[in-house]
Amino acid sequence: MLEGIAGLHRSHGCGELRATNTGEEVTLMGWVHRRRDHGGLIFIDLRDRSGLVQVVCDPESGEAFKKAEEVRNEYVVAVRGRVRQRPEGTANPRLATGAIEVEARELRILNRAKTPPFYIEDNIGVDEALRLRYRYLDLRRPEMQEILRLRYQTTRAIREFLDGRGFWEIETPMLTRSTPEGARDFLVPSRLRPGEFFALPQSPQLFKQILMVAGVERYFQIVRCFRDEDLRADRQPEFTQLDMEMSFIQREDILNLVEELMAHIFRETLGVEINLPLPRLTYQEAITRFGTDKPDLRFGLEIQDVSTEVKKCGFKVFRDAVATGGVVRGLCVKGGAAFSRRELDELTKLATTYGAKGLAWMAITTEGVRSPIAKFFTAEELQELMKVMQAREGDLLLFVADSETIAAGTLGALRLELGRRLRLYDPGQLAFTWVTDFPLLEYSPEEKRFVAVHHPFTMPMEEDWPLLDTDPLKVRALAYDLVLNGVELGGGSIRIHRRDIQEKMFSLLGFSPEEAQEKFGFLLEAFEYGTPPHGGIAFGLDRMVMLMARRDTIRDCIAFPKTQSGTCLLTGAPSPVAPEQLLELHLRTVVRSADRQGKAVQE
Amino acid sequence: MLEGIAGLHRSHGCGELRATNTGEEVTLMGWVHRRRDHGGLIFIDLRDRSGLVQVVCDPESGEAFKKAEEVRNEYVVAVRGRVRQRPEGTANPRLATGAIEVEARELRILNRAKTPPFYIEDNIGVDEALRLRYRYLDLRRPEMQEILRLRYQTTRAIREFLDGRGFWEIETPMLTRSTPEGARDFLVPSRLRPGEFFALPQSPQLFKQILMVAGVERYFQIVRCFRDEDLRADRQPEFTQLDMEMSFIQREDILNLVEELMAHIFRETLGVEINLPLPRLTYQEAITRFGTDKPDLRFGLEIQDVSTEVKKCGFKVFRDAVATGGVVRGLCVKGGAAFSRRELDELTKLATTYGAKGLAWMAITTEGVRSPIAKFFTAEELQELMKVMQAREGDLLLFVADSETIAAGTLGALRLELGRRLRLYDPGQLAFTWVTDFPLLEYSPEEKRFVAVHHPFTMPMEEDWPLLDTDPLKVRALAYDLVLNGVELGGGSIRIHRRDIQEKMFSLLGFSPEEAQEKFGFLLEAFEYGTPPHGGIAFGLDRMVMLMARRDTIRDCIAFPKTQSGTCLLTGAPSPVAPEQLLELHLRTVVRSADRQGKAVQE
Repeated sequence: MLEGIAGLHRSHGCGELRATNTGEEVTLMGWVHRRRDHGGLIFIDLRDRSGLVQVVCDPESGEAFKKAEEVRNEYVVAVRGRVRQRPEGTANPRLATGAIEVEARELRILNRAKTPPFYIEDNIGVDEALRLRYRYLDLRRPEMQEILRLRYQTTRAIREFLDGRGFWEIETPMLTRSTPEGARDFLVPSRLRPGEFFALPQSPQLFKQILMVAGVERYFQIVRCFRDEDLRADRQPEFTQLDMEMSFIQREDILNLVEELMAHIFRETLGVEINLPLPRLTYQEAITRFGTDKPDLRFGLEIQDVSTEVKKCGFKVFRDAVATGGVVRGLCVKGGAAFSRRELDELTKLATTYGAKGLAWMAITTEGVRSPIAKFFTAEELQELMKVMQAREGDLLLFVADSETIAAGTLGALRLELGRRLRLYDPGQLAFTWVTDFPLLEYSPEEKRFVAVHHPFTMPMEEDWPLLDTDPLKVRALAYDLVLNGVELGGGSIRIHRRDIQEKMFSLLGFSPEEAQEKFGFLLEAFEYGTPPHGGIAFGLDRMVMLMARRDTIRDCIAFPKTQSGTCLLTGAPSPVAPEQLLELHLRTVVRSADRQGKAVQE
Repeated sequence: MLEGIAGLHRSHGCGELRATNTGEEVTLMGWVHRRRDHGGLIFIDLRDRSGLVQVVCDPESGEAFKKAEEVRNEYVVAVRGRVRQRPEGTANPRLATGAIEVEARELRILNRAKTPPFYIEDNIGVDEALRLRYRYLDLRRPEMQEILRLRYQTTRAIREFLDGRGFWEIETPMLTRSTPEGARDFLVPSRLRPGEFFALPQSPQLFKQILMVAGVERYFQIVRCFRDEDLRADRQPEFTQLDMEMSFIQREDILNLVEELMAHIFRETLGVEINLPLPRLTYQEAITRFGTDKPDLRFGLEIQDVSTEVKKCGFKVFRDAVATGGVVRGLCVKGGAAFSRRELDELTKLATTYGAKGLAWMAITTEGVRSPIAKFFTAEELQELMKVMQAREGDLLLFVADSETIAAGTLGALRLELGRRLRLYDPGQLAFTWVTDFPLLEYSPEEKRFVAVHHPFTMPMEEDWPLLDTDPLKVRALAYDLVLNGVELGGGSIRIHRRDIQEKMFSLLGFSPEEAQEKFGFLLEAFEYGTPPHGGIAFGLDRMVMLMARRDTIRDCIAFPKTQSGTCLLTGAPSPVAPEQLLELHLRTVVRSADRQGKAVQE
């Protein structure tokens, strides 16, 4: 027989009780974590959001004991009882409440539970699909509750900090206009305007700029964004962004503010101090030294350029690479001379997946340089190479000779792989860096036009404005990314606030004036009514929490995530809808048999 | 020539400067609110988010004066200068900065502006469509900035309070499953699952209950919700809700917590103290005394029931109403005996629009009762009526004889109309009240079945459980609404946490077990794994801010609202999309010519 809680008021969280509570009468409510029968007594580990406490039911308690005999794991119960010290020798020092136990005087069964499909405890090796299907049980596990709490505390720290800096949180629309520049939009059919659609926002970019035009000066929002992309790797169709924008500021102001924000977040949530100022790398430096615009600075192993040293050497592959405009770059792996043939083969294989034609290596041994290509170099050349690469006995040199893009990308990937293998860093370490001065544009071979590296609203660096006409790919943007441990946490830019520059940008992107007007006319028009200089940044909250919680997937940091195939295993969304619903939306579905097969494959 | 802000750093907000800043060198950035040329000088009222300040440009300043000659209203400028006291007799006491002015030494034009289509000032009598089209100009007006700020401060106060009470803000999905119970869903076609759809949430109801099953215990969220309803009156297709849910609590706990929350919000944002506890009315009391479940308690003018007094009187209309199960109820309008014939006719007309067949009246004059129906009553009966109605000389009695529903509804409407006309209240007053004990179900003649008054997850009052089988319409729900000045601010309930009761509820709503399983199977299943007793409430944030800001429409309290026809005049959403986008979504639009005409009509 289930009972209610009438007349009872929770006095404590289970996990809050301590030896100092001894003698107090308490009322607890929570879940039966474990029940053990021992020595004629029933022991219940009672669990709530605050932790666990041991409840003891004695047959002499009568009613309470009888009910305790009924309870099973995950039953919901209320317990009234007295806190007492555990008998000598039975204290559990691993439990915060382990010095005491609660002697039950009244026990009510508030709800029953079937046997859960997995244990409600940390580190269960359970299939993720099962966890998502029973997310309400998965989220009961202490490690998952801890993530929910961390995520909440992170948003609280963000709001606290930005409030103190004069930012206002302002909500922007979720039902907005489809803008084909960018990723694929999720569409929402309009019932009142047959044949027309809203789009869910990929970011509030245009609205936050409009808010700057509106004189808001300092805006932020923790906001849901949507991208209908194929869900490779660790993406979600809906994700949460910390979005910020400020007027009357320069790049330096934003970088400084964000650094202080990050220090505040990590201090308030994890108790970790971050040293400011954060390092800053230009895009070009990041590529040259780390082979990526998202460098992991937890370890060194920097890329070295030896193009000058090898341009006249006897090894044709190196010589030709430099002669045809490419580069020769390498890594010096401390202690790597001991790598086995198999390890070298693995690294070579990895190199080729990044487009390199091969990987040259030199092991620096007590007997000298051991390498298939050593014979192409004079002793002086080898000496010079070792000097530039700062190689010592026992080290391994790895070289890629290719275009700068491929050499950098390959060595960047090798660097990460070696960092992991050789445990060159403490995974718990936090290494932030800014990457600045990104190129404004890149050429898209698929679209046969320039596309914006950040987005079309990014301000080119003033000193590069003349290059907009002569050499657009050389133009640097006032854009910046914040990178943590090799992961892009967020990115932003100073925005274009002048109609003439924005029109120039649209024209470089290949929009006709009519297209620009059709797509972004309201923004161009707004620029004519007194738009202040402004800029901002946006951070992926899911990813930030993932790094803070040291998880491998953002799905662990979202209360109700979608699977890799974009479905919700809890509710079964998406789902078919009633024909009348489509009729009202002036829609008909067109599902071809190929689609159906595709569907079967995707799941 | 436009300039940048390089080398300049804003030192103050325009509106922050005071006489105490006299002599300081300041750097300001903002918008030219007005420019006046006077006595060879140029005066600029410079405006930013913080307010206005007067800047003076002297021809002797050279460059700065030359640039000042160029500026027009809404130009964006940066000014460096010295604060000085205004000359004797020119101080402006209505302006916070009115004691001082800034003598410009440097002026930079950061951006130009065309002449705005309306003035950037309060109380402009401008068509709302124009304001929405140029929302970035509309939001520059101080009264609109004040609302943005108030809205932000409201959310800040909410978060502050709930954080202190152990609530965690947790985000729930925007792409979720369509559940046909409730209003019409906005749908989002799935690209990866041809022919299937997500729905945008009408509220996070199911997810917040699932979070209670997950042991979160105290959840809140300030969250966007969506309803695809026809936008009569003051509705928006997307709106924001403060959503809360708690476990292990009873109704009383929630009501108390919410009262303290409201007191905190009003204290922190408006500096207003709300007296607690708030009044509480049962649904039945509210209907009987005020004719509505959203009573405006800023004034009295309560409805009186005189059915007993008139059931044997000589006036057949009254007698018959009572004899056939109806009621006779009335209002005593203090001083209303002086109403003109025309005013009485207007009230009668209003009464008939609420379904009443007529409105009987009695004016209590120095010469006695003046009334077309006085002749049907004995002197004793009249005396008795006046006593019950607490009528004095000079008052007017109004009566409706009808079914309880129509009598209550009509008199409730008359009461509001009279309250307004007779200025029975100070519009700035705040009168909160709880309305509790709503019926669980009502009968829907259209659907020919019971529907839930709140929603299908509302717990019936335990003492009424037996009535679920015998007389479901008599069952009262553990539901409650918070009403402010006659407007429903929010509503909630204790939820069903037991599968058996939830199934019973679904069956009363006419769902077959299969339908219940299909629609809400995951919730029913969750109830079997240890669901705690729980309940919650949700508030309309837009409406709350509207009442706090004393505006007439929620559109003024949303940064980027939709029009009454559901469109965004700023961006032009919704809009047609590219055929490829539909192809990818496995959709075809079906726009009939009737739709097109409908569209023309709707706009």
